[in-house]
Amino acid sequence: MEIKRPYLLFLGDVKDSLAAKTGLGIVDWRRDWCLGQYRLPGCMADAKIDDLSIAEAAEMGAKTMVIGVVNAGGVLPDHWIDSIVDAIKAGLDIASGLHMRLGDVPAIRDAAERHGARLHDVRHSTMSFATGKGTRRPGRRLLTVGTDCSVGKKYSALALEAEMRSRGMNAEFRATGQTGVFISGRGVALDAVVADFISGAAEWLTPENQPDHWDVVEGQGSLFHPSFAGVTLGLLHGAQPDAFVVCHEPTRTTMRGVGHPLPTIGQVIDLTRACGRLTNPDIRCVGICINTAALIEEDEARALLSETAEEYELPVTDPVRFGVAPIVDHLRMEFPV
Amino acid sequence: MEIKRPYLLFLGDVKDSLAAKTGLGIVDWRRDWCLGQYRLPGCMADAKIDDLSIAEAAEMGAKTMVIGVVNAGGVLPDHWIDSIVDAIKAGLDIASGLHMRLGDVPAIRDAAERHGARLHDVRHSTMSFATGKGTRRPGRRLLTVGTDCSVGKKYSALALEAEMRSRGMNAEFRATGQTGVFISGRGVALDAVVADFISGAAEWLTPENQPDHWDVVEGQGSLFHPSFAGVTLGLLHGAQPDAFVVCHEPTRTTMRGVGHPLPTIGQVIDLTRACGRLTNPDIRCVGICINTAALIEEDEARALLSETAEEYELPVTDPVRFGVAPIVDHLRMEFPV
Repeated sequence: MEIKRPYLLFLGDVKDSLAAKTGLGIVDWRRDWCLGQYRLPGCMADAKIDDLSIAEAAEMGAKTMVIGVVNAGGVLPDHWIDSIVDAIKAGLDIASGLHMRLGDVPAIRDAAERHGARLHDVRHSTMSFATGKGTRRPGRRLLTVGTDCSVGKKYSALALEAEMRSRGMNAEFRATGQTGVFISGRGVALDAVVADFISGAAEWLTPENQPDHWDVVEGQGSLFHPSFAGVTLGLLHGAQPDAFVVCHEPTRTTMRGVGHPLPTIGQVIDLTRACGRLTNPDIRCVGICINTAALIEEDEARALLSETAEEYELPVTDPVRFGVAPIVDHLRMEFPV
Repeated sequence: MEIKRPYLLFLGDVKDSLAAKTGLGIVDWRRDWCLGQYRLPGCMADAKIDDLSIAEAAEMGAKTMVIGVVNAGGVLPDHWIDSIVDAIKAGLDIASGLHMRLGDVPAIRDAAERHGARLHDVRHSTMSFATGKGTRRPGRRLLTVGTDCSVGKKYSALALEAEMRSRGMNAEFRATGQTGVFISGRGVALDAVVADFISGAAEWLTPENQPDHWDVVEGQGSLFHPSFAGVTLGLLHGAQPDAFVVCHEPTRTTMRGVGHPLPTIGQVIDLTRACGRLTNPDIRCVGICINTAALIEEDEARALLSETAEEYELPVTDPVRFGVAPIVDHLRMEFPV
């Protein structure tokens, strides 16, 4: 299951940075796992790390070439296949978050078989999970939840892991989406698991652990999102978090991809507690992360954060702008070692 | 998608009635779709319909042989394969609710290809669904929900469909589990859908319809079941029910397969309303179905039902013992044509 490191990031010839966001996210959070980037002529994205050829990367010890791009249909352009086959021939494994499976391309499948390379399609789980049991297990867990999709749940979880580790806490990021899997080198894309096994997969991902160990679990969707709330609930039940952090984007008026209004932060806290109690009666909210990027003036951003802190009597921060220290302070108070 | 009728029920050589419960359920609810049963020597189950050979059934016009059995591993015993191949050769399609796919057995796959037979593995959806949109659509929908798994949600939905139809209402059972799919001839086993598409599959299953048309949707799991609540929530959001009926088994103390205590009926009503409101602000509970089989004395059963009716101010019945007329009465009052 583990994706071998270090990585060579393949950015292809994508037309902008957004199309390479998976690769750029890996560099943001795991700079030292990335030996370099391999770009085709015309590539408009730049992860600001060394440009390497496949031969150079292989010589320097690269173990996996990660297809660090996203595109609308999730398909693999034909003119990338040669590069992938070359990487396999050079001894690298390949990891992809595209919808299309690597092994469905005959040239890639054949090369992988011939050279013993592993093909990781992180969007497709090849694992079998048990159904969730809901039994309490040792170790502590923190889950990020959201008022919507794409409001910073992965970013917040990674920032929390980094802050907790910097204080010597035993914290481990647990990935539940494709970019997160590359960043942690393991994990499971929960949205690709068969429905019956959502909470079972979340239990597998956050197993029994030391009493002082924190799994910091990347949330998915929102309990209030009509497309994905089932995944959110299964993850909540399976992760049985002791603590959760609500993530929010204050300028959004309707939920991503649908016409529904955003819930309030308070509604998310209440429903997360009401549902989470099923597998962890002591579940509690320990903070709120707000993306204030749209508020250019820092004063304005700080005002919003302190208003929200007062309303909910919780630490509130923008993890990108101000870090997550206040939340970790509060977490340590709520869960003394 | 439609499974062609009439059916020949294949009961194999199962050792008791429980192992043939899928087949027996089809006969209970769709007697006229079943031409007969085909049993191997030693079969201990009996659907109490004509025993037919494959040749007899084919001659009488059978279109599909349904593997009407369940077993622990979901595997197909080797000594059933010949019967299945014979049915294909006689011109029948095959439908199975086993975990193992029919097409994974080379002899079955080859015979099906040669004779143009369709293989229905109702546990495995071959369909691609869109993600749920949560948009309101015309037509009315009723969903059965439960305090647990296996508390009569399918039975109640079928009983409600039958009662509504007997009153000339435009009602249609919508199957979300394998037995239900055989009983309705279509539907989707929701627990086998990829997690991202649960609510989308539920929307597909209960499409836009006439204003007076009722989809009577078979519920799955329970919002309080730690293994399956994600499926339950995705179904609730996708079906966007106007009305729901809570199903309950009063003697059960812990939830099926796990150690969690059962929620109260009131908790299920409250959480179903709280979550269902997202895609249907007017969602309401229209009745409660209680399985009173464990209460031998009819007086005792009636006492429990009337106590519960008083507590929740809703019609309460045992659909097997007393029918669902009171719930349909109430439904018509709440939703006048």
